[in-house]
Amino acid sequence: MSTPPAIRWEAGELRLLDQRQLPHRLEYLRIDGIPAAVDAIASLAVRGAPAIGMAAAYALAVAARRSGDVAKVLDEGGDALIAARPTAVNLRWAVERLRRRGAADGSAAALAEEAEAIHREDAAACRGIGEQGLDLIQPGDNLLTHCNAGALAVSELGTATAPMYLSHQAGVPFHVYVDETRPLFQGARLTAWELGAAGIDLTLICDSAAASLMAAGKIDLIIVGTDRIARNGDVVNKIGTLNLAVLASHFGVPFYVACPSSTFDPTTETGGEVNIEERGEEEVRQDHAAAVAAFNPAFDVTPANLVTGVITERGIARPPLGRSLLELLE
Amino acid sequence: MSTPPAIRWEAGELRLLDQRQLPHRLEYLRIDGIPAAVDAIASLAVRGAPAIGMAAAYALAVAARRSGDVAKVLDEGGDALIAARPTAVNLRWAVERLRRRGAADGSAAALAEEAEAIHREDAAACRGIGEQGLDLIQPGDNLLTHCNAGALAVSELGTATAPMYLSHQAGVPFHVYVDETRPLFQGARLTAWELGAAGIDLTLICDSAAASLMAAGKIDLIIVGTDRIARNGDVVNKIGTLNLAVLASHFGVPFYVACPSSTFDPTTETGGEVNIEERGEEEVRQDHAAAVAAFNPAFDVTPANLVTGVITERGIARPPLGRSLLELLE
Repeated sequence: MSTPPAIRWEAGELRLLDQRQLPHRLEYLRIDGIPAAVDAIASLAVRGAPAIGMAAAYALAVAARRSGDVAKVLDEGGDALIAARPTAVNLRWAVERLRRRGAADGSAAALAEEAEAIHREDAAACRGIGEQGLDLIQPGDNLLTHCNAGALAVSELGTATAPMYLSHQAGVPFHVYVDETRPLFQGARLTAWELGAAGIDLTLICDSAAASLMAAGKIDLIIVGTDRIARNGDVVNKIGTLNLAVLASHFGVPFYVACPSSTFDPTTETGGEVNIEERGEEEVRQDHAAAVAAFNPAFDVTPANLVTGVITERGIARPPLGRSLLELLE
Repeated sequence: MSTPPAIRWEAGELRLLDQRQLPHRLEYLRIDGIPAAVDAIASLAVRGAPAIGMAAAYALAVAARRSGDVAKVLDEGGDALIAARPTAVNLRWAVERLRRRGAADGSAAALAEEAEAIHREDAAACRGIGEQGLDLIQPGDNLLTHCNAGALAVSELGTATAPMYLSHQAGVPFHVYVDETRPLFQGARLTAWELGAAGIDLTLICDSAAASLMAAGKIDLIIVGTDRIARNGDVVNKIGTLNLAVLASHFGVPFYVACPSSTFDPTTETGGEVNIEERGEEEVRQDHAAAVAAFNPAFDVTPANLVTGVITERGIARPPLGRSLLELLE
């Protein structure tokens, strides 16, 4: 693994890889307090739900050490971090975890310990996903992935990419087609870059080329990440995921979702309950289109019946997905 | 209809709308001979198979009038035009039609007449497609189209767009979702622009948003163009068409292809025989991606069994498509 980490925590200093500048420049932002962290999260310098949570946790530890008024940092600073991207569940979860720790032990050192624990647990979950998914990748396979559910979004192995990184380390030869992932090109900018940096053989494609590859028998396995899995097994993920799932079903390609077991949310009954974020029209129009209306949903919902399995650190859930995921959590 | 024409032929002067500059600038190139026409075709100032054929025919008429040596123009000039984009069938077909006319009557006026006849026939075929497809669009329908099979690619009504233009003229209210069509954004740059100029209600989407729209029941009808239909009914069209056809089949959305009956090629047995053009990797990478490998097929093949019907000027072919198209040609 030679992918530079999204988050660096060294000698009490927090540095975030500025993902807005990838793949052209590899530059770390030094985060010296809450305002810098809020700015980095809101502007997508750091993105991916788990990575945002970890960045917020470390930022609270840094700010607590500098300010001395730990209670105020956790209260006001925590609120500012949560507001930076209010839809990211992990962000609120991480802030609240540090608040609980702060209530028990108000030292800056304790907060740093808690942030490190979150980071360690995340890395362990990713490693677990990689180990559980390792056997899915056979020598000579052609994989397909969408968006970035990689090291840049989580910790060093990523989720969808974890079986790829571990297979590559084990010397298994395989190849990955990377969907560019319009409109924000996370596949082209981030996934292609991080897999390439790790020495994994890859080919970038436009999202709409996936069908012809599957029709030609050139895709053996699809692995994507997810932002949330509902109680019935419906999968919420980056717009375009449902496209791939329908194509995979039509062409008989195994379609896997990879995530920590904590991404399963039994309090959401079905994917239909999830409020799908609509982002700005200008992300679609860019400078190509005239001043026409554009529709830019950031996510879509893949029904459970199109998913072959969900790779978690506790095992691979199989249909019926909802029940299988509940069993893994027990 | 207020869409500016792709090709203007007035008082013996040929002007081509410079489609490279759309939608930002509306500028016509004056074509004063073969070199200017070759440059316009090769650089995609004019694109779309029928439009390229018409542009070449008019360019031969212009060059013949200026040179006086009509035989040389048809011979050498014709070869240069064919070489500008060797895969476009209509280009060769138009040049050869003018050569036949030139062999019978070597005057520049006769060549101009022949070019006008091609243009007239194309416009008539588009109008026929529009009339045949008119009843498919019901009041309140939401349509989806891909790439540009519009006025800019053909003559004033286009192919896939012809039923839309005629329905709009008839006062039928409907709405069109326009796939942006990566990698070259013909949907965003051209289709959205020309439908918008005609006053048709539209929304631009990323190609990968089509699945979630269909899942939500928001697409009633899909109409796309085609570059070639094989004897068995397989449809060759812009990359991403197969995606839409599979999704349409999964979600129960009618999937129509619109083209002049001359696009049916009974000498090609199946879509598998068609050589799919692979274009440059840089069209996919743009400036987003690092120096990774990219795969950029320009077309895909939609099997006949995923097509609801083919709208031609002679009627709508229905499954089994190949036999139905042969009957329409008789």
